[in-house]
Amino acid sequence: MRAEDEKRSGPGDGPVLLAHGSGGRLGRELVESVFATAFDNEVLARMEDAALLDVGGRLAMTIDGHVVSPLFFPGGDIGRLAVTGTVNDLAMSGARPLHIAAGFVIEEGLEQEVLSRIAASMREAAAEAGVDIVAGDTKVVERGAADGLFITTCGIGTVSAGVEISAAAARPGDAVLVSGSLGDHGTTILCQREGMSLESDLESDCAPLNGLVEAMLSASGEEIHCLRDPTRGGLAAVLNEIATASGVAIEIKEEHLPIRSQVRAACELLGLDPLVLANEGKLVAFVDAGAANVVLEAMRAHPRGREAAIIGSVAAAEKPRVYLRTQLGSRRILVMPAGEQLPRIC
Amino acid sequence: MRAEDEKRSGPGDGPVLLAHGSGGRLGRELVESVFATAFDNEVLARMEDAALLDVGGRLAMTIDGHVVSPLFFPGGDIGRLAVTGTVNDLAMSGARPLHIAAGFVIEEGLEQEVLSRIAASMREAAAEAGVDIVAGDTKVVERGAADGLFITTCGIGTVSAGVEISAAAARPGDAVLVSGSLGDHGTTILCQREGMSLESDLESDCAPLNGLVEAMLSASGEEIHCLRDPTRGGLAAVLNEIATASGVAIEIKEEHLPIRSQVRAACELLGLDPLVLANEGKLVAFVDAGAANVVLEAMRAHPRGREAAIIGSVAAAEKPRVYLRTQLGSRRILVMPAGEQLPRIC
Repeated sequence: MRAEDEKRSGPGDGPVLLAHGSGGRLGRELVESVFATAFDNEVLARMEDAALLDVGGRLAMTIDGHVVSPLFFPGGDIGRLAVTGTVNDLAMSGARPLHIAAGFVIEEGLEQEVLSRIAASMREAAAEAGVDIVAGDTKVVERGAADGLFITTCGIGTVSAGVEISAAAARPGDAVLVSGSLGDHGTTILCQREGMSLESDLESDCAPLNGLVEAMLSASGEEIHCLRDPTRGGLAAVLNEIATASGVAIEIKEEHLPIRSQVRAACELLGLDPLVLANEGKLVAFVDAGAANVVLEAMRAHPRGREAAIIGSVAAAEKPRVYLRTQLGSRRILVMPAGEQLPRIC
Repeated sequence: MRAEDEKRSGPGDGPVLLAHGSGGRLGRELVESVFATAFDNEVLARMEDAALLDVGGRLAMTIDGHVVSPLFFPGGDIGRLAVTGTVNDLAMSGARPLHIAAGFVIEEGLEQEVLSRIAASMREAAAEAGVDIVAGDTKVVERGAADGLFITTCGIGTVSAGVEISAAAARPGDAVLVSGSLGDHGTTILCQREGMSLESDLESDCAPLNGLVEAMLSASGEEIHCLRDPTRGGLAAVLNEIATASGVAIEIKEEHLPIRSQVRAACELLGLDPLVLANEGKLVAFVDAGAANVVLEAMRAHPRGREAAIIGSVAAAEKPRVYLRTQLGSRRILVMPAGEQLPRIC
């Protein structure tokens, strides 16, 4: 993003840019200056992945729009993404996902057969996650007024008593864990879009994570302080969000980051950083150091966490910061990505 | 819609047409052949305006996409519409709307000032309805990949014990009531789009109806069998849906239908039927005949129901049908609208 673009688009002012759609700083500014200001309420202000609601028992609620291009990609499609994205946002609140509602905006001319394949894929993902799609809505717009298909999914789930997971709950001494390799989804979409086929076995990691979270909570519920899925903006955005919300410093070690060789190769070719690429089936957990190994073992015993690793730790800090300790031993600041490197990645 | 179009688009087959976005038969077919089949579950199969969920206490959940063009129109805008549309779907299930989640798909280049005006309008509508917007999501797509702004809203609410309102619950002997004038929203959008200004005081009826429904339920909760808001497809679509779901015949009297003179004039000019035009702040109620006057009085005492009227009645029938008794005394069948007369009306 160029400096003048950034200047043109101060908070609440100027045209919306693609960069505002990112998981980075500009996206955050748009949300804060336009929506959080307008809808001003305590639940929304928490800016968690799902809203926690007290409707007799605690309920979590989340919504997510999906505009990925292309609609189909190795390892998934927009339908699978729409279900798992919402399931995962609920799971990251420590909620048990129960029900999904799906709104479709369809461009006139899309083949119904395509729509049916996507719906079947949604059903499959819902079955995998153990949720039902209980409500829906369909709007059709004229040719050219949308690009194929957009799916917005909303989900609700229940939160057990005692579960207190929040981006603001990371504490000095916590270990930082990831559930597996980073950047698979973003790299897959990008290669698909650029017509590159680096390696035939690279595919999106798009998958529901509620089963994995349940296994982790069973292993050590109260020692898990914070869970996030690093989607748009990747690991860099999520760690910066948590550092800011919790008021801590986070240091991660480059040598411990699980990144596939195909992802490294594609990123080198395309000039991208795997730490800002989207994941759709991975989570980051902040866990009390004393429980880190127990949680790690529980993760590795689950199909969605076989490659889980401890990648860093949390320290007290005057200023929230995320540091990357490189393989050469030097330390650099891992900044919040500003704009959108990859539009329509999810 | 031309016959060959209709032929090209049998259930589950062929390209999606604008007509599939209607509240009519083709829209229903698309939903049934693609989504209800794929997501196969009991809650969704009921095809009510909101899904009733048993999450400790009864919960209603609904989702609605909004793609109206233009974004601003007399009496409202896409933001107000997005909130009231979802509030009203919940209210039509007899639920007390509580929380809204909103997903935004924004075309790159939309002015943030426009977005802020729309967000402010959403807040105002939410305050009017007594709901909070507790979760949100923002996606930005490149110029040309969407038309300005689409908003998908999902809502949840609680349903009191004893409230059993359903499109399948209309009974022979029921009176049919509407809460006010028909076709105002559809006519307003159409005139705005065509650059027509028939009368300066015609505006969309876009408004939350949960207050009105509460007043009606207080007056005679158990005698209200069925509530629907006649949005896309208008009164004709809603009455046909209810006739089919309840297996009854419905007869309405033309002379009792509240329709503004400006709406009549615009419809004559444009060759449209006010009974298939969208409303965004009106409801249709099926009420036990013995309680009809009590409910009517309660409606008229509420600001959103001042022009409420009894417009017809329900009879037993072998075949579900909707009849219109004209002012000349003849009776004609009011058919389910097939396709889309007015794309992007909501």
